[in-house]
Amino acid sequence: MTERMMYKNHDEKEVARMEKELRYIAAIIKHNGRKILKNYTITPPQFIALQWLFEHGDMTIGELSNKMFLAFSTTTDLVDRMEANDLVKRIRDTKDRRVVRVQLLAEGKRIIAEVINKRRDYLNTVLSDFDNEEVKQFSQLLSKLHEEMKKDWKED
Amino acid sequence: MTERMMYKNHDEKEVARMEKELRYIAAIIKHNGRKILKNYTITPPQFIALQWLFEHGDMTIGELSNKMFLAFSTTTDLVDRMEANDLVKRIRDTKDRRVVRVQLLAEGKRIIAEVINKRRDYLNTVLSDFDNEEVKQFSQLLSKLHEEMKKDWKED
Repeated sequence: MTERMMYKNHDEKEVARMEKELRYIAAIIKHNGRKILKNYTITPPQFIALQWLFEHGDMTIGELSNKMFLAFSTTTDLVDRMEANDLVKRIRDTKDRRVVRVQLLAEGKRIIAEVINKRRDYLNTVLSDFDNEEVKQFSQLLSKLHEEMKKDWKED
Repeated sequence: MTERMMYKNHDEKEVARMEKELRYIAAIIKHNGRKILKNYTITPPQFIALQWLFEHGDMTIGELSNKMFLAFSTTTDLVDRMEANDLVKRIRDTKDRRVVRVQLLAEGKRIIAEVINKRRDYLNTVLSDFDNEEVKQFSQLLSKLHEEMKKDWKED
């Protein structure tokens, strides 16, 4: 056993395999996501912004920048374009008028819901050889991984 | 039960959850991958190209274009730049001199191996609360999903 393996928790081969599978799966999901977006007027970064507003509610541009790992100015441009296309609007906080939040409009909501639905349909197709128990397990393992990634993020 | 659910194989809620987790995990992995690349001289598309050559061996620019879902001309530019940086070289097939393949050079191999290792280290960190059995299951489920995605791809 090498020194490296001694302080590692898991079998190196298993982690190597998992890293590789995750890398290839992420690439296919990305490509498939772009294929879905071709039928819509939104760009990939707009999809990600709409996704955050749809699943986590109104947020300030600063919050959205952090979620999207983008510079504040880039996020501002993104919001400007989405506002021009009537996908979102800026609203002022009723308690603190200095705070501006981005809110999803009906058209933004319609598009994002449709796109996410198509992504689910795709996933359902590629899961057709999985039994219900496997899907449940898989889903739980992914949720746990996501939680651990968020924890690691905060410690960073 | 709605009509929609009747022809679906899996619980809609479970598939919805899984689609969401995969989407967020892919975003975090992407961001973390870019963070790792900051210490190297290669760009994200160069990382993907080097990954294919490292894990699947020499290939023609056409093959590499297909794997990377890129236009032939984009891949040609990418290979040109990597060749200028001594990461890869073009080699002629000994049997059919008209066929040109891209081959990884020592420096390209060194960089890609190091970057993949850092990605494994990150995965190992976020897997620290998983037991060995969970990692094994997770890895198997991901391999199966990847296989199904490749099948779906070919049928497309």
